[in-house]
Amino acid sequence: MDSIKAQLDRKTHSKHREREKIERKMVVKVYGPTYASPKRVVVCLIEKEIEFEAVHVDLFKGENKEPEFLKLQPFGSLPVIQDGDYTLYESRAIIRYFAEKYKDQGTDLLGKTIEEKGLVEQWLEVEAHNFHPPLYNLVINVLFAPLMGVASDQKVIEESDKKLEKVLDVYEERLSKSKYLAGDFFSLADLSHLPFGHYLVNQTGRGNLVRERKHVSAWWDDISNRPSWKKVLQLYKYPV
Amino acid sequence: MDSIKAQLDRKTHSKHREREKIERKMVVKVYGPTYASPKRVVVCLIEKEIEFEAVHVDLFKGENKEPEFLKLQPFGSLPVIQDGDYTLYESRAIIRYFAEKYKDQGTDLLGKTIEEKGLVEQWLEVEAHNFHPPLYNLVINVLFAPLMGVASDQKVIEESDKKLEKVLDVYEERLSKSKYLAGDFFSLADLSHLPFGHYLVNQTGRGNLVRERKHVSAWWDDISNRPSWKKVLQLYKYPV
Repeated sequence: MDSIKAQLDRKTHSKHREREKIERKMVVKVYGPTYASPKRVVVCLIEKEIEFEAVHVDLFKGENKEPEFLKLQPFGSLPVIQDGDYTLYESRAIIRYFAEKYKDQGTDLLGKTIEEKGLVEQWLEVEAHNFHPPLYNLVINVLFAPLMGVASDQKVIEESDKKLEKVLDVYEERLSKSKYLAGDFFSLADLSHLPFGHYLVNQTGRGNLVRERKHVSAWWDDISNRPSWKKVLQLYKYPV
Repeated sequence: MDSIKAQLDRKTHSKHREREKIERKMVVKVYGPTYASPKRVVVCLIEKEIEFEAVHVDLFKGENKEPEFLKLQPFGSLPVIQDGDYTLYESRAIIRYFAEKYKDQGTDLLGKTIEEKGLVEQWLEVEAHNFHPPLYNLVINVLFAPLMGVASDQKVIEESDKKLEKVLDVYEERLSKSKYLAGDFFSLADLSHLPFGHYLVNQTGRGNLVRERKHVSAWWDDISNRPSWKKVLQLYKYPV
């Protein structure tokens, strides 16, 4: 028969394992962190000091179109997160969720008042609807098309360059008045620019669009030098 | 010399006028309510029982590119709102702002928990990034191009139809499991579909895309029959 000590040890051990299992289950899972949009989530999790683990999804192998993945994300897009039993997709929805759930942990990314938060939302939308679309077209046509052996669309490249210049002119004006987009505090609105901003500055030969604009340039240096973003680049290389 | 009564009357009257002036200043101003995106804001204001007044902006006359307007919205887009001294643009940012500011007034459009709110955000993003872009292309090419004497792009029309069908297949699956997009409650996510959903069902000859999908069809009937949306259509005719 077991000694009482052995029985207690076993009990403690079993409890310990159970807790580990629960904790493990509770670690946030992020799908596809090497790609740009999921990096929006990863940099947010680091700013909010939230533990996470990566689940790699290979878009080039079409893993995002497999039935198991489509159960999580029916459009076959990245990222997805799992927070315990809770599944969420769309990077900008996910970063809002974590910024709110852990409002008082890590960097506050939402602003202090409803008015500040409104401006965070406004500039998050500007990122999504003004900044992102022409930049996405540039990334596809300048970076990915040659790599996949597909012809680049020169007309799309020219139009996107023009659009992006106009957008950055508005940013220059805005950033001459406040240090960050939503005000004098770093927020989700700035953070959301990091993953594709990295492509713009470092991999499409268009760093000049940023460097020619004094305030945009200083803003980019500020946000891209945050330890959180450096950590993201160190943890997960871009696929291209 | 005035009687005391006359003096008091004048004082009361002046106070009254002052209050009226303040109240007037505080009534929310919505720029451009005849157009589709501003209608997202108007229907939200009605659901939240917030008083507002309309400021008309004629896009066909280019009033959105005039310096005075660009001071409010540097990209020259509609809508913009003014809430006292506070100016905000981007329709989906504005509806989030009002839904939060008046959380306990009118219809709750955000969900009760952080998890519900996360799903509201997710489906707001799906509306913006999956539903809206192909539908916007259809509205431009099927409705506006002929009206402006511009050639419609048949390839864009075909691609947009295909994309939209796939998106609505996902909606059908989702709406077979919950009454509304984010769960069993009407939210910003549903509301955000109304202005362009109206074009889809009633003005592009594509009502079948909705009607062929049982749950999407029931959902559309539900949300488009809300008194708030009927009021919007009654107050502000679409330009096309």
